[in-house]
Amino acid sequence: MSKEDLVFLPLGGSGEIGMNMNLYGVGTRSARKWIMIDCGVTFGGPETPGVDLIMPDPSYILEFKDDLLALFLTHAHEDHIGAVAHIAPMLDCPVYATPFTAELVKSKLEEADAAIDLRVIEMGARLKVGPFDLEYVTLTHSIPEPNAIAIRTALGNVLHTGDWKLDDAPSLGPVTDAASLEAFGAEGVECIVCDSTNVLSPGESGSESAVQESLKDLISQQPNRVFVATFASNVGRVLSICKAAAAADRSVCLLGRSMLRIVRAAKTVGILPESLKFVEPRDAGFLPKEHVLYLCTGSQGEPRAALSRIARDDHPEIAISEGDTVIFSSKIIPGNEREIYDLQNLLVDLGAGIITERDAFIHVSGHPNQGELARMYGWAKPRLAIPVHGEARHLEFHADFARRLGVEDSLAPRNGDLIRIAPGGLALLDEAPSGRLYLDGKILVPEGGGSIRERKKLGWAGVAHVAVAIDKAGRISGEVVARCIGAPPIDGEPLEDLIAEAVEDALDDLPASKRRDVVAVETTAMRAARQAAVSTWGKRPAVLVSVILV
Amino acid sequence: MSKEDLVFLPLGGSGEIGMNMNLYGVGTRSARKWIMIDCGVTFGGPETPGVDLIMPDPSYILEFKDDLLALFLTHAHEDHIGAVAHIAPMLDCPVYATPFTAELVKSKLEEADAAIDLRVIEMGARLKVGPFDLEYVTLTHSIPEPNAIAIRTALGNVLHTGDWKLDDAPSLGPVTDAASLEAFGAEGVECIVCDSTNVLSPGESGSESAVQESLKDLISQQPNRVFVATFASNVGRVLSICKAAAAADRSVCLLGRSMLRIVRAAKTVGILPESLKFVEPRDAGFLPKEHVLYLCTGSQGEPRAALSRIARDDHPEIAISEGDTVIFSSKIIPGNEREIYDLQNLLVDLGAGIITERDAFIHVSGHPNQGELARMYGWAKPRLAIPVHGEARHLEFHADFARRLGVEDSLAPRNGDLIRIAPGGLALLDEAPSGRLYLDGKILVPEGGGSIRERKKLGWAGVAHVAVAIDKAGRISGEVVARCIGAPPIDGEPLEDLIAEAVEDALDDLPASKRRDVVAVETTAMRAARQAAVSTWGKRPAVLVSVILV
Repeated sequence: MSKEDLVFLPLGGSGEIGMNMNLYGVGTRSARKWIMIDCGVTFGGPETPGVDLIMPDPSYILEFKDDLLALFLTHAHEDHIGAVAHIAPMLDCPVYATPFTAELVKSKLEEADAAIDLRVIEMGARLKVGPFDLEYVTLTHSIPEPNAIAIRTALGNVLHTGDWKLDDAPSLGPVTDAASLEAFGAEGVECIVCDSTNVLSPGESGSESAVQESLKDLISQQPNRVFVATFASNVGRVLSICKAAAAADRSVCLLGRSMLRIVRAAKTVGILPESLKFVEPRDAGFLPKEHVLYLCTGSQGEPRAALSRIARDDHPEIAISEGDTVIFSSKIIPGNEREIYDLQNLLVDLGAGIITERDAFIHVSGHPNQGELARMYGWAKPRLAIPVHGEARHLEFHADFARRLGVEDSLAPRNGDLIRIAPGGLALLDEAPSGRLYLDGKILVPEGGGSIRERKKLGWAGVAHVAVAIDKAGRISGEVVARCIGAPPIDGEPLEDLIAEAVEDALDDLPASKRRDVVAVETTAMRAARQAAVSTWGKRPAVLVSVILV
Repeated sequence: MSKEDLVFLPLGGSGEIGMNMNLYGVGTRSARKWIMIDCGVTFGGPETPGVDLIMPDPSYILEFKDDLLALFLTHAHEDHIGAVAHIAPMLDCPVYATPFTAELVKSKLEEADAAIDLRVIEMGARLKVGPFDLEYVTLTHSIPEPNAIAIRTALGNVLHTGDWKLDDAPSLGPVTDAASLEAFGAEGVECIVCDSTNVLSPGESGSESAVQESLKDLISQQPNRVFVATFASNVGRVLSICKAAAAADRSVCLLGRSMLRIVRAAKTVGILPESLKFVEPRDAGFLPKEHVLYLCTGSQGEPRAALSRIARDDHPEIAISEGDTVIFSSKIIPGNEREIYDLQNLLVDLGAGIITERDAFIHVSGHPNQGELARMYGWAKPRLAIPVHGEARHLEFHADFARRLGVEDSLAPRNGDLIRIAPGGLALLDEAPSGRLYLDGKILVPEGGGSIRERKKLGWAGVAHVAVAIDKAGRISGEVVARCIGAPPIDGEPLEDLIAEAVEDALDDLPASKRRDVVAVETTAMRAARQAAVSTWGKRPAVLVSVILV
């Protein structure tokens, strides 16, 4: 029998931003007990038309489902909990989350009509499952209730940081529990598995209370209505903005479904006081301009969010006018630049002034810069480091940086890398199957699946369909019918007419012996249709031919 | 008869980045003589699938084609000349360009098999066309031969800056002809029509020769092969990199079609010396790693460019290996972040080190920061300002900034705004039709055209086609044939089978009297097909039904 080891296996979030899914295993190669930490999504984009959500493919762990003891959630960001409603039902194990995270998971389960064994635990909870002894350690981050998980096993201890920063004065919730981290470090930490998002940035990420002060100054200087866009999940920021509004004698009106949902969840679990009051959109319009602040979603230019609708003058109750101010209390997530600038241009066209983090100190990141990473490594004193939660360039940099911070060895994993942590130090043992699942309508499809590739091609050149009926004598019966979607008229004539003519001509030229041969008719029609499109339009649409023998 | 005026009309590039097209008119409302300055493109993106090039719709000026005296090109960037081959043939007027610009226009005309009356003029040329007296004024920019155009008319003078920066030590070509600008200012400049790209940035954009020095240091420190990605059109940068390579005793190998094309054009017109030698890709591989530098296209992550192919290990002659360095001597054009980061991650995965302008001083912009704008306004001393070449947020800021620089009035135009410059100061006279044309295959389609909208929908949910033949008795003849593109299998079963069944069932239920009614059959089949897709897949593909009466 082989020796027992402690292994780490990321199925998502290593070598990419988003969709975190991490596995830890203890046992022998042939018999391991597993826990999963986090189960997140990333969002589809132009490369995956028609796909809203993308999540890690859990096939590997589904094979060992009976040995998966539990799923632990560190915090409630989408890239850590967004796949729970889709994947946890297949895992068939308990799911642990702190109150605020659990509250948001519940609303996701309801939406997806899914059921799981969700267990609410307190901040700082400690629990044992199989060979794992886990302790939630309170951190600070851009969402309430962020947790590291201190994992104790007979083979060594691991600090799994989740997402974090160090904020000595958050606007909401406790500061980082440095004492527990130091105590864990004193016990001996074999390995840290650590957030890499901001590893390329020197210094410190900055404190939320400094943002709050800056927002107070800024908002009090605005003459007319103020709109502030931020992430709804950043409840600390939401509170900062509410306090800044109160200081400027402005009532706050919440706009956007997720803003309302998250504020409600935060009140339910007591993170925001019930006494925090908001004005309804239909009432806000009647307030003097200098006494209202709209707190809204859409800082990333999402077309269906409140701010985009307002910018397009497509909101039933709110209109922006000359002299209003829109503050983007947020960063630009890479890839969203075009949408955000388009949104800002629309707002400028309506006469609004725009203030972004380029113009004023109105945002801090929720992830640790190099200075904070150094402090964390100083507390935990890990012997080894595995950087996660980042793209290749972040992970490789972090692996170097960790060595400069004094760890003996580090290894930047990619999804699917089965890495031994102990005994004997870091080693790549195996590659587990990994990949992505796309939520396409209601169906989860593997990333290599043909449907999305086909649709991208349709987006490029459209489709032409040709239907032809062939009678028993091998003659075309009725008319050749061609239909196109996505082709422009060619000098005023529909491409489908040109294709129908071309197909008819080509079939006329087919020898009589081939005319009841479905394959020959199909091939001839397809070739003629393609040729007609290429010669007139210069493109190759997908061509479908239906031959009906009548 | 109405009084004569001098008007400005942007048809592209005002309220957006890219596709510049500017018109100046002199005359009465009913009879104006026109000149056009620049005729550029912008590039299609995910919002316009299947469209590579987007250009201004010239319909307005085509109406007054007989009064359009000439098209003047300021410089050879795509957003100033990219539409010449497509639009100038319709304009039917001479096109003026300096030698390097003309050389690149020629190769575009050849590619598009188009012919125009192209007239090559020297830098600093002065010519009269109708009521316009034009003088090319040499500037500095990120391409050879950048020109402002000093326009003299009986109604007042205008300085049309084109794209520019102030570089006291360019690596190539002369410095800005400040003397001519000052002399023009002394004559009296009614209005400046000015580049707004970098108006949000304080200070100065920096000099190319400083970049050259920095590149020399950086490249000499690299142990293995060095790849440098930059814009091919930035011939000054190309020369800087060649000099840095020579200083580090490295031979330069050019990669990428546009790099070869532009270097050839620069040699043809004598901008680069014929003595500048390059090594062929097949030979470069045999050189010691520390003696080669690959100068390549693809700094924006363009998938078909040299660097992306190398990163995907898909280049016939070049492979990157551990310890090589890739220098991005370029900026990130907003909107390209995702592609660039994906490219960098692939390179990191191959073991390369990445150096960007975030890490070292290896790039300067080609557009004027606020300090340079102040100097230009100081030379030209315009009474009025019209900021162009920028998005809404740039133009509005520039209009304010110009007033702070001392102009009496400023007006930020949008495409289609017909603006009076003189007499009597800036006023919006009219809105001319304006818009965009998409090059879709070989066909120019208006931006509102249905083909691209249809294709985006196809990208979202694919297409289902149903063909059914109905015999004279109103029975389904043969089989109902359904074909889908872009739909995933539903629990292992092709969606087209589910659709075919559903359509057959629905047609069976159709009363006999309706069965030869093409519209009724179509409607029934379409509804059944949609319903089958929605209930199983959760999406609504486009549905095409072909009914053949046999």
